[in-house]
Amino acid sequence: MELWFTEKQTESYGITAKVKETYVREQTDFQDLAMIETLEWGTMLTLDDMVMTTVKDEFVYHEMVAHPALFTHPNPRHVLVVGGGDGGVIREVMKHPKVEKAVLVDIDGKVIEYSKKYLPTIAGELDNPRVEVIVGDGYMHIHEHKNAYDVIMVDSTEPVGPAVELFSKGFYQGIYDALKEDGIFVAQTDNPWFKADLIETVNRDVKEIFPIVRVYCANIPTYPSGLWTFTMGSKKYDPLQVDATAIPELDTKYYSPRLHHAAFVLPKFVENLVK
Amino acid sequence: MELWFTEKQTESYGITAKVKETYVREQTDFQDLAMIETLEWGTMLTLDDMVMTTVKDEFVYHEMVAHPALFTHPNPRHVLVVGGGDGGVIREVMKHPKVEKAVLVDIDGKVIEYSKKYLPTIAGELDNPRVEVIVGDGYMHIHEHKNAYDVIMVDSTEPVGPAVELFSKGFYQGIYDALKEDGIFVAQTDNPWFKADLIETVNRDVKEIFPIVRVYCANIPTYPSGLWTFTMGSKKYDPLQVDATAIPELDTKYYSPRLHHAAFVLPKFVENLVK
Repeated sequence: MELWFTEKQTESYGITAKVKETYVREQTDFQDLAMIETLEWGTMLTLDDMVMTTVKDEFVYHEMVAHPALFTHPNPRHVLVVGGGDGGVIREVMKHPKVEKAVLVDIDGKVIEYSKKYLPTIAGELDNPRVEVIVGDGYMHIHEHKNAYDVIMVDSTEPVGPAVELFSKGFYQGIYDALKEDGIFVAQTDNPWFKADLIETVNRDVKEIFPIVRVYCANIPTYPSGLWTFTMGSKKYDPLQVDATAIPELDTKYYSPRLHHAAFVLPKFVENLVK
Repeated sequence: MELWFTEKQTESYGITAKVKETYVREQTDFQDLAMIETLEWGTMLTLDDMVMTTVKDEFVYHEMVAHPALFTHPNPRHVLVVGGGDGGVIREVMKHPKVEKAVLVDIDGKVIEYSKKYLPTIAGELDNPRVEVIVGDGYMHIHEHKNAYDVIMVDSTEPVGPAVELFSKGFYQGIYDALKEDGIFVAQTDNPWFKADLIETVNRDVKEIFPIVRVYCANIPTYPSGLWTFTMGSKKYDPLQVDATAIPELDTKYYSPRLHHAAFVLPKFVENLVK
């Protein structure tokens, strides 16, 4: 018998992947979690039937959440990751020696637990002594910490289920307040083919709060449309003003100093969404 | 009953789209052709069960085949399109007033016929008086024309079926000879996630023939992995030396003067394939 996992990315379109084995299928307190072994993408974590990460293509998302902001801020000592319980963003953050402490707040401890067990190449750095892992509500954490972080990264699920609040204007205001006076935040903001409205709304909201707002893209094959956007809000530093020749060459597979500026040059139809 | 078309992009991965209606399903002399109405992507042309183009996302591929080369060559008067019977590349070529004549050579007249009937927004310019449409063998046409074209665009299917020869070194040598002394060619060269070997091979072959070889990418949601590569070989003009501020703003949805250089900045794992 052939088993295939199909994610309906819209009502009438999806991706489908052949499955060798199901390691975990569990309704947690927050979402439907599955850890499956696919032939094409290796081990895959899904939440509410949406692909969160796979061993084969995870590097794109995790690198592109972490590095553009960390190479824009000149001294990112304190970093917060909201969501991201699989640990992939933390792994990339740990590549920056300037980071003294990174706090990860994920609402679902099961994501952390199963990622450590089944996704060791992704979650390995969650045990780094520079990392503090908190199982808790990122929205609350943001509102309880003022002037605390240099960089905040929002590695949320899509705006359904537990992550709805993480796309609200109140959340972005909370992030602004939780950042230091020269802080930067970045959030994954879905894809422009099926979620153009979301990108427009987030962009408008963030622009009302942050003086510098930039959007960049990356190709993530297992995410809807393969084209993902990230929205950066900054109080002081502009990623487009960074001297890319001064960025060191990290051990990465997608991000590079050369890509730092190019990633912000958007296809025209995306550019038009965030004008 | 719900009908879904599934393209197995690899043995163990694919995309799936809900189908409202099947207009055409026909074994032509060269391939299995289907024209179907999908809910997500509008009318879709498939050849041998592979998505060739859809009304919703076709602009990316067609703009990105045509404009980078046409804005690199200072005087592209004579253009050849090999394949591309749907007419999308020709439509973009016709946006360049410097082009006096564009020749399209597609081996399968049925693709042209059904595209005119079911994809009028894509095929409309095939009747432009500046266009000559030839139903014939592109490989032969190339070898029968020497020093004839300023720009040659290879809009082929994947390297299976009738297009196998269009990825051979002999074909690239033929293209070199069919180009004038300052000519440029561009070919679609598949995706780096599943076809890394192909990209490496083509790059190596083209570098042995053309002094200037550049690779660029675009996001095409309905193509495998969503990330597509294009390989450009040039005798004289370097796309990276183009003054992008002098590129006019065409009526496009993906390509822009701003994207001209950025599209050539590759994700690091792609960069490593073509070093």
